[in-house]
Amino acid sequence: MPKNEAAQTLDGWYSLHDFRTLDWAAWKMLTGDEREMVIREFTGLLEKWGAVEKAGKGSHALYSIVGQKADFMMMVLRPTMEELNEIEMEFNKSRLAEFTLPAFSYVSVVELSNYLAGDGDPYENPQVRARLYPELPKANHVCFYPMDKRRQGNDNWYMLPMDERKSLMRSHGMIGRQYAGKVKQIISGSVGFDDYEWGVTLFADDVLQFKKLVYEMRFDEVSARYGEFGSFYVGNILSAEKVPSFFHI
Amino acid sequence: MPKNEAAQTLDGWYSLHDFRTLDWAAWKMLTGDEREMVIREFTGLLEKWGAVEKAGKGSHALYSIVGQKADFMMMVLRPTMEELNEIEMEFNKSRLAEFTLPAFSYVSVVELSNYLAGDGDPYENPQVRARLYPELPKANHVCFYPMDKRRQGNDNWYMLPMDERKSLMRSHGMIGRQYAGKVKQIISGSVGFDDYEWGVTLFADDVLQFKKLVYEMRFDEVSARYGEFGSFYVGNILSAEKVPSFFHI
Amino acid sequence: MPKNEAAQTLDGWYSLHDFRTLDWAAWKMLTGDEREMVIREFTGLLEKWGAVEKAGKGSHALYSIVGQKADFMMMVLRPTMEELNEIEMEFNKSRLAEFTLPAFSYVSVVELSNYLAGDGDPYENPQVRARLYPELPKANHVCFYPMDKRRQGNDNWYMLPMDERKSLMRSHGMIGRQYAGKVKQIISGSVGFDDYEWGVTLFADDVLQFKKLVYEMRFDEVSARYGEFGSFYVGNILSAEKVPSFFHI
Amino acid sequence: MPKNEAAQTLDGWYSLHDFRTLDWAAWKMLTGDEREMVIREFTGLLEKWGAVEKAGKGSHALYSIVGQKADFMMMVLRPTMEELNEIEMEFNKSRLAEFTLPAFSYVSVVELSNYLAGDGDPYENPQVRARLYPELPKANHVCFYPMDKRRQGNDNWYMLPMDERKSLMRSHGMIGRQYAGKVKQIISGSVGFDDYEWGVTLFADDVLQFKKLVYEMRFDEVSARYGEFGSFYVGNILSAEKVPSFFHI
Amino acid sequence: MPKNEAAQTLDGWYSLHDFRTLDWAAWKMLTGDEREMVIREFTGLLEKWGAVEKAGKGSHALYSIVGQKADFMMMVLRPTMEELNEIEMEFNKSRLAEFTLPAFSYVSVVELSNYLAGDGDPYENPQVRARLYPELPKANHVCFYPMDKRRQGNDNWYMLPMDERKSLMRSHGMIGRQYAGKVKQIISGSVGFDDYEWGVTLFADDVLQFKKLVYEMRFDEVSARYGEFGSFYVGNILSAEKVPSFFHI
Repeated sequence: MPKNEAAQTLDGWYSLHDFRTLDWAAWKMLTGDEREMVIREFTGLLEKWGAVEKAGKGSHALYSIVGQKADFMMMVLRPTMEELNEIEMEFNKSRLAEFTLPAFSYVSVVELSNYLAGDGDPYENPQVRARLYPELPKANHVCFYPMDKRRQGNDNWYMLPMDERKSLMRSHGMIGRQYAGKVKQIISGSVGFDDYEWGVTLFADDVLQFKKLVYEMRFDEVSARYGEFGSFYVGNILSAEKVPSFFHI
Repeated sequence: MPKNEAAQTLDGWYSLHDFRTLDWAAWKMLTGDEREMVIREFTGLLEKWGAVEKAGKGSHALYSIVGQKADFMMMVLRPTMEELNEIEMEFNKSRLAEFTLPAFSYVSVVELSNYLAGDGDPYENPQVRARLYPELPKANHVCFYPMDKRRQGNDNWYMLPMDERKSLMRSHGMIGRQYAGKVKQIISGSVGFDDYEWGVTLFADDVLQFKKLVYEMRFDEVSARYGEFGSFYVGNILSAEKVPSFFHI
Repeated sequence: MPKNEAAQTLDGWYSLHDFRTLDWAAWKMLTGDEREMVIREFTGLLEKWGAVEKAGKGSHALYSIVGQKADFMMMVLRPTMEELNEIEMEFNKSRLAEFTLPAFSYVSVVELSNYLAGDGDPYENPQVRARLYPELPKANHVCFYPMDKRRQGNDNWYMLPMDERKSLMRSHGMIGRQYAGKVKQIISGSVGFDDYEWGVTLFADDVLQFKKLVYEMRFDEVSARYGEFGSFYVGNILSAEKVPSFFHI
Repeated sequence: MPKNEAAQTLDGWYSLHDFRTLDWAAWKMLTGDEREMVIREFTGLLEKWGAVEKAGKGSHALYSIVGQKADFMMMVLRPTMEELNEIEMEFNKSRLAEFTLPAFSYVSVVELSNYLAGDGDPYENPQVRARLYPELPKANHVCFYPMDKRRQGNDNWYMLPMDERKSLMRSHGMIGRQYAGKVKQIISGSVGFDDYEWGVTLFADDVLQFKKLVYEMRFDEVSARYGEFGSFYVGNILSAEKVPSFFHI
Repeated sequence: MPKNEAAQTLDGWYSLHDFRTLDWAAWKMLTGDEREMVIREFTGLLEKWGAVEKAGKGSHALYSIVGQKADFMMMVLRPTMEELNEIEMEFNKSRLAEFTLPAFSYVSVVELSNYLAGDGDPYENPQVRARLYPELPKANHVCFYPMDKRRQGNDNWYMLPMDERKSLMRSHGMIGRQYAGKVKQIISGSVGFDDYEWGVTLFADDVLQFKKLVYEMRFDEVSARYGEFGSFYVGNILSAEKVPSFFHI
C-alpha cells in the first residue's frame, strides 16, 4: 500500500511558532516600574517553560526577529495540542500581551519523514526519539519558513511514484547533511493544522549558513521543481539575560 | 442529462462557521464581575442553542482555535439561511461581541454528493437524514478548511466526464472510510454562498488523525490533481464547563 | 468587424453594490433614542429611493448579508454615474454611516450581451428595456459575485472566434433558462469600471437555487474552462418593516 | 540593437495619482466653520496648482471616485520627481489630509512608445510635446488602471521579436484611434517606479466609452494574450465649483 | 560539484531596508518645540550612523519615498545581523518612531554572484571588497525592488545547467554595465532571510535611468523568462540638511 506508507510519518511534539510585534508607543507610556513588573511576569512564564524543558516534557525558544515582520518569536513544543493552546492563552492573558500585536503563527507537529525510515519500532529508537522530542538548541540565530510540495501541471509531487519521491528526498537530504554541525533542522508537519504542509525551523550560530543551505537546496530538484515557499523569518537569540535590555526604553 | 445529474446533490442544514478573536486588552479592562455577566449572557446563548439541538432543529459546536488565526469558533447548523443570520446577529448584539473581532466565517449547506447516491427517495433514508441533519459530535478536536476543485490547464475537474469523476470520488471516499470511528467528516457545499466550493469540517478525539487523513488523501488523484485548499483551522473543544476558565483573567 | 460586434453590448442603468459592516460596539454606545433617530434618517433615504423607483428613474434593494463579509448590502441602479456617486455620498454623510465600515463595493452597468441580440433597435424593444432598466425584485434572497472570462494558456476566451463564443454562450444561457421563475439574474458589465469584467446578481425566494444554478453552470464549458470568480456574497431581504429590528439592540 | 531600441521610449512629465478616502466620521466632528477653513486651504492648493498649469509647468486633475475604493483622486504632472514629492508632502501637511486615509497611489512618467516613433528629434515635434507634457482635459469622467505585459509560458511579450511587437501594437493602437474625440488616453511608464509597468488614464465625457474601449481592446491579441490588469478606478470630475458641496455636511 | 559551486556567492555586509510612513495627524498634534526635539534625537541617530560609516564599519542612506507606499526609507549596512537588529530597535525606541507606522522592510546581505567570479581569494581583492562593503552613494534617487528567479513549468531557472545560467547572467550583466556611471546597483541576497531571493537597490542622479535600465533588462531572457518582481519603491535623497524641512509643519 504505497499510499498508506506515504502517510506513515513519525510524529513527535506539537509545535507553536508565535510571532509578535511590540506596540512601542503604548509600551513607552508605562512608567519604568510598570514595565519592569510586566517583564518580570513574562520572565516568570519563561522560567515555568524552562522547568517543563528540564523535566523533558517540552521545549521552547525565544528569538528577536529582524525587520518589520515581527519583533520576537516564541517557539513552543509540547506533547499535546491542548498544552499549546494553554500556553498561547497564558501569554494572551499576561500583561505583556497587552503591548503586543499578533504578527504570524504556525501550528504543526515535529515530524520524521517515512522516506528516511529504518527497521524496528522507531519510537523506541533513541536517535529517532531525540529528533521527535528535541530540546531546542540555544543557537545564535533562527530561520523559519513554511512550505508546500507543488501540485502544478507537470510538477506534481503527489502524482510521483513512491520510489521516485524516495530517491529525490534522499539526494535532498544529502545537502542537509553537509551542513551537519552548522545548521540544525527541525521539520514539522502541518497538513490539516495550518496553511502550508510543513514548517522548517533552522538553527545556526552563523546566520549566513541559512542562506547557503536554502540556496543550495533550491537547485535540488525537490525544491527547484516541487518546492513552494511561504514567508521567511530570521532572528537573533533573545536569551534570558538579554530580555530586560530588549524591552528597556 | 449528466450535467443535471451532477447538480443533484442532497442538501441538509445550512451552516455558519464563525471564527472570532478576543480583544484581550479591552476584555481585561472590565472588572471580574462585569466579565462574569458577559460570560453568563454568552452561556445563556449556548443553552438556547442547546435546546434547539435537543429539539432536533439544529446543532452547534464551540471550539478554541490554536494559533493566531482566531481564538474560538462557533459552528451552527439550522434549517434556514434566515436562522443563521439571526444567530449571527444575536451574537453581534451580545456583550461578548464587543470584545471580539471577526476573524473568518464560512457559509454553506450540509451536502451529500450525488456521486454516492443510492436508490429511492434519499430524503426518506434515515442514514442519509442523519448525515444531512447531523448532531455535531463532542469530539476533542475540530479541523476546518474550505476547498475547490481545480480548473487549470489539463487539470480541470469540471471538464471530466461524469463517469471519471464518479470513479475518482469513489476511491477518494475509500480513504475517508478507513478513518471511520477515528474522524467524522461533514462536507458542506458553498457554491453560490461563499468563496470556495466546499467546506470540510473534521472531528476527532486524536488530533493527529486530521494530519494522517488529509495527508493520505493528498496522494489521491482527486486531491493531488484537482484539490485547491484554503486556510486550515485546528482547535480544541470548548465545552460548557471550560468556558469560564477560557475567558477568566 | 467581429471585434466591434463583440463590443456592441446593450447598456442600461448604472449599478452600485455597496456592502457595509456595522460597528456594533459604537452603535450600542448610543441611547435607544439616538439609535431611533439615526434609523429614521436612514429609512428616510430608503423612502426617497423608493419614490425614484416608483417614478421609473431607478431601482434599489437592501439585503442583510450572512457571515462576516458584511452586515448589509445596498444595491442601487440609476441612469448616470453621477447619481450613483451622489447616493453614495448621501449615505456617507448620513449618521448611520458613522457606525458602518466599508466592506466591499462594485461599480457596473446593467448589460445585455450581444451574443443574444435579435433584430431591430433593441433599445425600443420593451422586453429588452425591462431587462436594461429593471425594477429589482423583492425576492427573499440575493447572491452577488464578480467574474472574469479567463485568458490563460489554451483557455483564452478572448482569443476564441466570435462564432465559438456565441455558441458556447448559447448553451450557457440554456442552463439559466431552466431556472426561469426560480432565479432572476441581472448581469452588469464592469470592464473599465471595476476589478472584474462582470458582476452577477441573482435573486431567488429559495436560497438553495443559487447553489444549484451556479454549480450546474460550473460544468458548462463557459464556466469550467473560462470562468474566473471573485468573492460570493449571499443575503436575506431586509424589507422596510424589518429594518428597525435589524438595528435594534 | 533591437533591445536598446525597445527601451527608447519618449518620456515627459512625471505623474502621481493620489487616491484618498475621507474619514467622514472625523470630518463631521468639526464645526461648519472649521470645515470651511480646511476646504479653503485645500482650494488654495488647487489654485496654486492651477497657476503652475497656466504657466505650462505641469498639470493636475481632481475627480471623485465611485465606490468604496476611494473618495477622490488627485492626478498631478510635474517636470521632476522632486516636485511630485513636494506636492504629496504639501497635501500631507494640509489640514484636509488629517481627515483622509491613503487609498492607493501610482508613480509613473508620461510616455510615448517607440513603437509609434517617426523621424527627427521627437522632443522638438509639437505634437509629441503636446502628448508628453499634456494639459489634462476637464472631461466629465476619468478611468485609471495599471497594467503589465504578460510573461507567462507561451504568452511572453518580452520574448517576442521587435517586429512582432511593433505590428501587434500598431493594430492595438488602431482601436484607440477609433475612439478619438470620445476618449483621451494618457499612457505613463512605471517600470522601476511602481508595481506595474504602465498606468493608463482615460478621460471621457461619456463614461460608457471607457467600457466600450477597454472591452473592445480585450479582444485584441495585445490585451487578450499579453495584458495583465490591476484595479480599475472610475470617477466623476470634481470641479472647483463642486468642491464645497462635495465636502459639505 | 556544480550545485555547491552555485551556492558559492561572496557575501558582505548585512542589509536592512526599513520603510516608514509618518502619522501626520499625530505628528501635527505636537508643539513646534516638541517636534524639534524629536527631530534632533533622530538626527542624532543619523550622526551616530555617520560616524560608523566614516570608520568603515557600515553605511546607511535616507530617502523620501514618492507615493503612498511609505514616507521615507532607511537603508543600513552592518557586519552582523545583530547590529541590524540593534539599529532597528534603537529606532523603534526613539520618539520619532511613535509617529511612524511600519510600511515595509527587507533583510538581506550584500552579495556578489559566483557567476562573475575571478581567480584568487576574492575577499582579498580590493574591487571585490569595495562592492561587498560599499559606502552607499549620495545619489539624488533610489529605487528598490525584491525579486525571485522563476521556477514555473518550462521556465525554471533552478533546473538550468550551470553553464547556461552563467552565459545568461553574463549577457544580463552587459546591460547593467552600459549604465555604468549612471546607475549604481547593489545586489543583496535574501534566500533564507526574507520573502524574495534577492533585493536590488539602484542609485542614480537621473531618476529616469531606473526606468530605462529595468525596462531594457526586461527584454533580456534572464528577466523576460525567469524574473519575478515584487513591489518597486522610488525615492529622493533626504540629506541631513533637508531633514528639518521634510518634517516641518
